Amino acid sequence: MAAQTIDDLPTPVLILDRAVLRRNLKRMSDRLREAGIMLRPHLKTAKSVQVGRMAVEGHDGRITVSTLAEARYFVEGGFKDILYGVGIVPAKLPAITELRRKGVNLRVVTDNIAVARAIADAASKGDTFSVFIEIDSGAGRAGLPWPELPGLLDIARVLHEAPNVELAGVMTHAGHSYHESTGDGVAKVAEQERQAIVGAAEKLRAAGIPCPIVSGGSTPTAVHSKDFSGITEMRPGVYVFNDLDQEFIGSCGAGDLALSVLASVIGHYPHRNQMLVDAGALALSKDISAQEFQPKVGYGTIAGAPSKDMAVIECSQEHGFVASAGPMPYGNMPIGTRVRILPNHACITAAAYDRYYVVDSDIDGGRTVVDVYDRINGW
Amino acid sequence: MAAQTIDDLPTPVLILDRAVLRRNLKRMSDRLREAGIMLRPHLKTAKSVQVGRMAVEGHDGRITVSTLAEARYFVEGGFKDILYGVGIVPAKLPAITELRRKGVNLRVVTDNIAVARAIADAASKGDTFSVFIEIDSGAGRAGLPWPELPGLLDIARVLHEAPNVELAGVMTHAGHSYHESTGDGVAKVAEQERQAIVGAAEKLRAAGIPCPIVSGGSTPTAVHSKDFSGITEMRPGVYVFNDLDQEFIGSCGAGDLALSVLASVIGHYPHRNQMLVDAGALALSKDISAQEFQPKVGYGTIAGAPSKDMAVIECSQEHGFVASAGPMPYGNMPIGTRVRILPNHACITAAAYDRYYVVDSDIDGGRTVVDVYDRINGW
Repeated sequence: MAAQTIDDLPTPVLILDRAVLRRNLKRMSDRLREAGIMLRPHLKTAKSVQVGRMAVEGHDGRITVSTLAEARYFVEGGFKDILYGVGIVPAKLPAITELRRKGVNLRVVTDNIAVARAIADAASKGDTFSVFIEIDSGAGRAGLPWPELPGLLDIARVLHEAPNVELAGVMTHAGHSYHESTGDGVAKVAEQERQAIVGAAEKLRAAGIPCPIVSGGSTPTAVHSKDFSGITEMRPGVYVFNDLDQEFIGSCGAGDLALSVLASVIGHYPHRNQMLVDAGALALSKDISAQEFQPKVGYGTIAGAPSKDMAVIECSQEHGFVASAGPMPYGNMPIGTRVRILPNHACITAAAYDRYYVVDSDIDGGRTVVDVYDRINGW
Repeated sequence: MAAQTIDDLPTPVLILDRAVLRRNLKRMSDRLREAGIMLRPHLKTAKSVQVGRMAVEGHDGRITVSTLAEARYFVEGGFKDILYGVGIVPAKLPAITELRRKGVNLRVVTDNIAVARAIADAASKGDTFSVFIEIDSGAGRAGLPWPELPGLLDIARVLHEAPNVELAGVMTHAGHSYHESTGDGVAKVAEQERQAIVGAAEKLRAAGIPCPIVSGGSTPTAVHSKDFSGITEMRPGVYVFNDLDQEFIGSCGAGDLALSVLASVIGHYPHRNQMLVDAGALALSKDISAQEFQPKVGYGTIAGAPSKDMAVIECSQEHGFVASAGPMPYGNMPIGTRVRILPNHACITAAAYDRYYVVDSDIDGGRTVVDVYDRINGW
């Protein structure tokens, strides 16, 4: 039987270029290893054990996840040091305990004293926990806002003094780096990120509370930071695949996008100079992050299109509207033509699929399906 | 063992109120039956056999789907007359044939003469097909644009004259009704929809080509149409659940939203008067359709919130940012409090889940889980 090629796959389908993936992984791994920083990749983007195993090569295997479903899946996949990076609630503690009893150091995050007390209470019955305190380094999402860090010492003392609880350290996600589009702009955010978590760690240590791990995050700051002093680990996520948003932020180049959605042309509309493809809101997602920098990318651009600005400018559930400033090359793109759409935001696009069809552009331009990687979705 | 309640479910999770669902289904079913119109519900919203079976009660069981995965799933579920409502490509014809050989009338759609010829060619080898011609009644998506209807007779002749091919009729989706917010505005779109498909049918019949089915669509036009003359069936979809977008369009009332995402409060941020919940971009989707009418709904409003304008105003992958014009009632909503978020666009939100936890607000306010319905995702 001949090897399966991407022409054999029903559309829409998710394609992962292993050659680009490997380069992306190596670049980040090398950069952090050379800086003396541990890599704890955020596997919320890939949600795949195969990608996860490749991502931690040369590091000690620690990872980050964003859901309990991911935690269970990566425990099953043999990972032993897992940070569940979304603020824990007391009702989820039994699920954490269940996984920790399998010999996995599944760590949780909080920024709330009531939660810290609930953890201490659960631990008093004999269960162990490892907890990070989340710091808001400027993104305005979760965490104690820096530089005030209100309540930091109170939360830390509850955790530090509780039997069976390890205060693992402090962590932040510099999500505001996603709104910068120059290396200098991102570097400034990275320095703010560093000062926030290193400052929080120093505040703890000055109070006699140990803070072994100082954990930063975000792909842009991991790429553009000029100084990691005091940081012990970084948790970038989307760098494994990259996407149009990361390209415009400057975290990667145009050749570093590992993920694409393979779609078929399903309609020609010369009266409005458009085509339709069978990848719409569900296949691409309705995330428009990259439009902050380049509105014309819509919901994704067409890789290798005859016209460089060809993009999916609108989506309904299963229809993508393809437009271009120039005349649409209908003759070269008959109905059924397959196109690869570069995602606007890889983490959100990938979530519609339960597997990756893996190709390798270093082998045959990415035609043959060389592997299939699985993916965990849901919660 | 006590019955499971929604308090026992891990969050985020999708909740379906069966009482509201039944009222929504009955209202549409009654309206179309009284108008003498067949109902071919578009099950792209529910993607659930249990909902599908309830939706066709009192009609003849015909349905619409948007993916081949749905087609396979509903064939397995016993449905016999299925319209795959997204423009077919030749590469998908073998999958159609495979399902038709199971005794199911799986019908396809095209607006392209090359595709019509490919269908005729496939049929010449013995396979049978049932084909609709798609008409663009003004939405500017798929279909031959009305009133010009370029190429209609050519496509119709290819299909009509091909052995083993049934030209089933004409169909349209009046997607432009989604941009109206008054009954009169929607009624005007509905009349345009009617004229387009009835006009196309008459053009075919005048040329001696039979056109048995004249198929309209969209929940708003099904609700607000004042005249169905000449239409034989309607394909509304989102009416089964409704959502904030349909409420603002005027397709339903505020009490008719059957679907919600149950989430937990995971953080309090008094310095910016916000909370975080564990339902973000993946749990709610990044669809912002309803913001066309009411920007403040963000990615979904909080059902039964102390403050009526409380909504998820921003999302990252697993974090939803909850804001409100008034002061946030932290005391009444401690960490772990469960909230129900009404979706902006039900079809897209539901796609992140593989099942519905069914409650019934007529029984106990919707606390007990009375059933679990499954869902098919992917392609």
